[in-house]
Amino acid sequence: MYVKNYQDITADTVEQGAKNTTIRWLIAENEGAPNFHMRLFEIGPKGNTPHHAHEWEHEVFILEGKGNLVGDESSQPLKPGDAVFVPGGTMHHFESAGGATMKMLCLIPSNK
Amino acid sequence: MYVKNYQDITADTVEQGAKNTTIRWLIAENEGAPNFHMRLFEIGPKGNTPHHAHEWEHEVFILEGKGNLVGDESSQPLKPGDAVFVPGGTMHHFESAGGATMKMLCLIPSNK
Repeated sequence: MYVKNYQDITADTVEQGAKNTTIRWLIAENEGAPNFHMRLFEIGPKGNTPHHAHEWEHEVFILEGKGNLVGDESSQPLKPGDAVFVPGGTMHHFESAGGATMKMLCLIPSNK
Repeated sequence: MYVKNYQDITADTVEQGAKNTTIRWLIAENEGAPNFHMRLFEIGPKGNTPHHAHEWEHEVFILEGKGNLVGDESSQPLKPGDAVFVPGGTMHHFESAGGATMKMLCLIPSNK
């Protein structure tokens, strides 16, 4: 059984349309995860993930900070303890708010 | 897109070998999640989940408190920020430590 603190995992910069955002892969192929993978994102002040859509879903949990889940038509505020489901095929991005970093888990299917 | 705070979701008591433990289903069938499901457990003081094995994996993230991941042969301490992977077929349970509640996310495949 595998136990590792997220702070001991390298944070990579998210490219391709993101701003001031890092990703850490907490549980993925290397840990033998067969069905889905866990990542931790830190979206810094005035940062955001790319505005995009893809066929797979996101399951997200907000750990720290505040932000917004932004779609093509509307935006929803996010706070710690919020669970977020983004269905496949939905245009979306995440952004921080309030001048602080928003930290969140984001899980995806393993075949994506 | 679905946003709901975990505190607005009912906490059910975990039966069958658990002690002082609740579960909230944050993202599952009702939210249309096709591949995997997100649950939040709160393991109260001196509480534990059942000691068991099953064919599917767990992906866990420790949110608050301290505890242990207990296998048949050994035990590993847990603290906030720890990511935990329990492969399918592994005997395990989670327990709180230090007299406080341990709060954790635990995700499983949707077909289990």
